Amino acid sequence: MKWLRFRFADREGLGVLDGEHVRVCEGDLFAAPQPTGEVLPLAQIEWLPPVRPSKIVGLRNNLHAAAAKNGWAVPAEPLYFLKSPGSLTAHGATVPEPAGYDGRVVYEGELALVIGRRAQAVSAQEAAACIFGVTCANDITALELLNRDPSFAQWTRAKSFDGFCPLGPAIETEFDFAAASVRTRVAGRERQNYALADMIFAPAELVARISRDMTLEPGDVILCGTSLGVLPMKPGSQVEVEIDGIGVLANNYGAAASG
Amino acid sequence: MKWLRFRFADREGLGVLDGEHVRVCEGDLFAAPQPTGEVLPLAQIEWLPPVRPSKIVGLRNNLHAAAAKNGWAVPAEPLYFLKSPGSLTAHGATVPEPAGYDGRVVYEGELALVIGRRAQAVSAQEAAACIFGVTCANDITALELLNRDPSFAQWTRAKSFDGFCPLGPAIETEFDFAAASVRTRVAGRERQNYALADMIFAPAELVARISRDMTLEPGDVILCGTSLGVLPMKPGSQVEVEIDGIGVLANNYGAAASG
Repeated sequence: MKWLRFRFADREGLGVLDGEHVRVCEGDLFAAPQPTGEVLPLAQIEWLPPVRPSKIVGLRNNLHAAAAKNGWAVPAEPLYFLKSPGSLTAHGATVPEPAGYDGRVVYEGELALVIGRRAQAVSAQEAAACIFGVTCANDITALELLNRDPSFAQWTRAKSFDGFCPLGPAIETEFDFAAASVRTRVAGRERQNYALADMIFAPAELVARISRDMTLEPGDVILCGTSLGVLPMKPGSQVEVEIDGIGVLANNYGAAASG
Repeated sequence: MKWLRFRFADREGLGVLDGEHVRVCEGDLFAAPQPTGEVLPLAQIEWLPPVRPSKIVGLRNNLHAAAAKNGWAVPAEPLYFLKSPGSLTAHGATVPEPAGYDGRVVYEGELALVIGRRAQAVSAQEAAACIFGVTCANDITALELLNRDPSFAQWTRAKSFDGFCPLGPAIETEFDFAAASVRTRVAGRERQNYALADMIFAPAELVARISRDMTLEPGDVILCGTSLGVLPMKPGSQVEVEIDGIGVLANNYGAAASG
């Protein structure tokens, strides 16, 4: 089942994707929302981020292929940062170029986990039941900020500009990550294509381990890290992150190039 | 004026501190809440964190004295991380020892800024008007997590355990940081005493610069960094952070030592 949030005729709502239609529901996404009977044409809604997380956790170095290619040691535990909740944006939204930063800005196509149940120091087995569903994410990064200060890697800052976390389009509740791949296209050209089976820490293990550090709340999002093929985005380009069984998250970056 | 949030008789509320009483108010803290006429004895309320931030920004290396003593270069721009919103806790609450981490846990007494008005790429002059008030904070840190992985400093993780951000007791709206000092006491013994005039980036400058990276929302909190005298807390000890003109934030850390 694919859950989405939308704006339609000046109201915001929740619904289930059904082909070219949205079956509107009411209630809390994580407490069995019920259909209202209303059906909207998909073409007429504005997509919203499918969830409003209290925190967005991002993983560093969680794909074996990227670690091997870059000479990074396989980490003994998940390495993570927080992105600002204000970086969240929806499928279809334009990601603004950061004012006051003119270095390279890169896409990172990733699997996003959506927590549906409070998780505090849970086991990996319990963690699986705390994952409500999954969606696509683009963990956008202002690359040259990361190591601009030699004493302090600026992970949060480089990844927290407004609009730097496109998420969606919808949350899929049935998903077998071990059989799925992430593909990222820029202006229609495939730049990333990696199997999620290559993750160093798999979804339930991530939730279990992070939940020992900080309590995860319903709606919280964990971005599972990216693999090879990360490149800068030119202003005006469209970036698509597609994951098998979930869908395609498409966003334009910056103003369209003129001429 | 000192604003606080409280729990009393199973309800949560907002009020103004008036000596040994709380004058209860209603409405949005940032939109001129009005007195209800009700007055509660301070001794009978349970303190809550005075605000519920969508993000808690923490500063690294923002005091000249600490930079000089530790041999850190004075940064060209504010260096910051995010703490989990779940790390927030109130004056008087006991901070739990993290399960699954048995290294040193240190206090860091700090000035906290509370944003009252949305700030997006504001000037330093505009920024001053975006600061609603200030309060005391303890930016608690699991010291040995910071550099446990040689490739990735784990700032967010080390600072985001549940309860690792005591904040309060109240938000003071009239404050001259240049004339105030922060004092931290552990079990009654003074361990930190530093003038806020020593900050590398002063409050309005911090808000202005961070607002160029990420939009700051009403309720967001910026912890201004700490100075010399950071030491581990033993389980069972009480830590007090006092700032002139604001008050004393007192919290116990972990279980009381037996015997």
